[in-house]
Amino acid sequence: MSRIYLDHISGTPVLPEVSQAMLPYLTERFGNPSSLHSWGQAAREAVETARGQVAALIGADTSEIVFTSGGTEANNLAIKGLALGGERNGKHILCSAIEHVSVLNAVRALKRSGFETELIPVDRYGLVDPQEVKKRLRPDTVLVSIMQANNEIGTVEPIAEIASLTREKGILLHTDAIASAGSLPLNVKELGVDALSLAANQLYGPAGAGALWLRRGVKVTPLLDGGFQEDNRRAGSENVAGIVGMGKAAELAHNSMPQRMTQLIPLRDRLLSEIPAHIPRVVATGHPTSRLPGHASFCIEFIEGESMLLWLDMQGIAVSSVSACTSKALKASHVLLATGMEHALAQGSIVFSLGIDNSASDVDYILETLPAVVDRLRQMSPLYAEFVKGAT
Amino acid sequence: MSRIYLDHISGTPVLPEVSQAMLPYLTERFGNPSSLHSWGQAAREAVETARGQVAALIGADTSEIVFTSGGTEANNLAIKGLALGGERNGKHILCSAIEHVSVLNAVRALKRSGFETELIPVDRYGLVDPQEVKKRLRPDTVLVSIMQANNEIGTVEPIAEIASLTREKGILLHTDAIASAGSLPLNVKELGVDALSLAANQLYGPAGAGALWLRRGVKVTPLLDGGFQEDNRRAGSENVAGIVGMGKAAELAHNSMPQRMTQLIPLRDRLLSEIPAHIPRVVATGHPTSRLPGHASFCIEFIEGESMLLWLDMQGIAVSSVSACTSKALKASHVLLATGMEHALAQGSIVFSLGIDNSASDVDYILETLPAVVDRLRQMSPLYAEFVKGAT
Repeated sequence: MSRIYLDHISGTPVLPEVSQAMLPYLTERFGNPSSLHSWGQAAREAVETARGQVAALIGADTSEIVFTSGGTEANNLAIKGLALGGERNGKHILCSAIEHVSVLNAVRALKRSGFETELIPVDRYGLVDPQEVKKRLRPDTVLVSIMQANNEIGTVEPIAEIASLTREKGILLHTDAIASAGSLPLNVKELGVDALSLAANQLYGPAGAGALWLRRGVKVTPLLDGGFQEDNRRAGSENVAGIVGMGKAAELAHNSMPQRMTQLIPLRDRLLSEIPAHIPRVVATGHPTSRLPGHASFCIEFIEGESMLLWLDMQGIAVSSVSACTSKALKASHVLLATGMEHALAQGSIVFSLGIDNSASDVDYILETLPAVVDRLRQMSPLYAEFVKGAT
Repeated sequence: MSRIYLDHISGTPVLPEVSQAMLPYLTERFGNPSSLHSWGQAAREAVETARGQVAALIGADTSEIVFTSGGTEANNLAIKGLALGGERNGKHILCSAIEHVSVLNAVRALKRSGFETELIPVDRYGLVDPQEVKKRLRPDTVLVSIMQANNEIGTVEPIAEIASLTREKGILLHTDAIASAGSLPLNVKELGVDALSLAANQLYGPAGAGALWLRRGVKVTPLLDGGFQEDNRRAGSENVAGIVGMGKAAELAHNSMPQRMTQLIPLRDRLLSEIPAHIPRVVATGHPTSRLPGHASFCIEFIEGESMLLWLDMQGIAVSSVSACTSKALKASHVLLATGMEHALAQGSIVFSLGIDNSASDVDYILETLPAVVDRLRQMSPLYAEFVKGAT
């Protein structure tokens, strides 16, 4: 049986060059970067090299990168750190209704500190209309957070347009670029944002490493207090191996971005056109064109997405149903509901997220499996069988 | 030139068994533990195995372990999470004056949320007198935090005695066991505490992984909001490789604790007796007997500890001067000052922290170097040269 991994939004494989770069820091180069002796300084240099590699990926200055333990910490530091760092200017926060739970729940946690939060709606494709942001900006708005691309539906948001509105009012804009950074070119100067989150494990690097880019001069209240690491913005002995891996992954992404897109877009487009053509009662989710290069997402009527996922797993195919972080919750995705989808249909979510380790033959295999998928759907759901009776 | 690492308090080498255990999770086993498919479930199982290994090291139940990104996050989660989780009962916090900065600064950060904090003094050996804790306990005290062993001076605190006092009043006791966990047996039931912090990189595991043990039923407010990982106590995709490494390191520590102590104590005791015998104007710091197995710490009069450190580094010997986390700050250690030491003498701090990779021949080498050290001290400091003129 083939084993095909099409769940890159839940975490990418670690590229061989990345694990090779990490290995010395898990063996002989074990120094603590804060130590002044040569063991420590070798580790310090490795961290600073990685910082430069991550900065280069997003067109930033090296000193603007704060390493974190991953995407969730980067988002928490952005939301809580910027809100608390700017609370003298006001306590109103805006974010889109389809943000990742690490943004949404960080925003919610701020209510305890007296912040008022407002969700910006999206259209049926999951797009944020910049005018919907503009009309909610208030004199006491201190932070707006809109993700660059949504992990569940693939939609890429008009961040640069939104940034021009927030910048005009002097309001900070954070973007969660965790889902996009490995597969979409991004430059913080072109985007015009003030803060941007990254995760190594979405970038063909290791889990346990992430970064928050903060525009020079932007004040952040640390989430982790302690030592002076990361220029007083994030205490704790550095995960040197993880950081080195993230740096290498960023360098590889930077060098091969055009090839990655050229590889992924045709594979994605085959899934986007063939799946609805061969599976009845399928609805594509997210935006048809403004979407992540490797991302094809659907909902199937009368079907439980997770049952579908488990059956595909038995066929050797890994996919997602809603976000991996919430899949244990067994409820419909807040993202799909925000696009106006009915609760029942949202339950049938299935996400194919391709990565650079996938080939055309992987997509061939998926497409060959589709007749068996339809058979399986009929077995799983009598309602589905009933409704598609005449359709095939 | 020999290269001898005697700075284990700043971070231990990663044992070969540990990096070998991690490697599959940095290559083919890259699944996200929250994913329901088999890639994810394999990662989930690895995390749960590691949780059991860490629990076994400290005599805890598996479900009581919360994995974090390291010791600093574990301490921050303990201090902020338990204080905010218990604030309905009061807003008074006690900790010792010699806690690690990740505890002290987390406690300080709580002042912003209206908490009142009080430092418990220590004696000249760095010992906390349980009676000094007892007399500060108030009806509104919600948390006491006393480290099990101090990283800078090696002193091991009477945690079980303190725990019997806090338990009597129903007040939570947290202990930072980061410096001790690799080299001292510890059992949460015998200690009687409610929360305990660990870091893999002090345990011959990788940096980037840590854990907070929370007694069942103890409520904690998460520091990182987002997904449902770690039983809703710490959001974020798990650093599976790091966690697996921490588990393996905990297992190895658990299996070899008596041997570790038998190996380290005689080496330490040679340093503790020989260094003051051969270097004039040396003062031993910390407790003479209630101290970490591998820890020998001193202050030298009229000397800058960091200059000494850099010179020893050129001789191939890695040591610390105060804590690695604060070494960039170039000020006297709060720990040494808390023991009543003068500021000038505290500047001359030097810490030899042995690990299981050290042998008797390493200590021989250090002792053989001592005459050269004394020569160097005379060159470095005219005052030192003046005062030791007649002494050798």
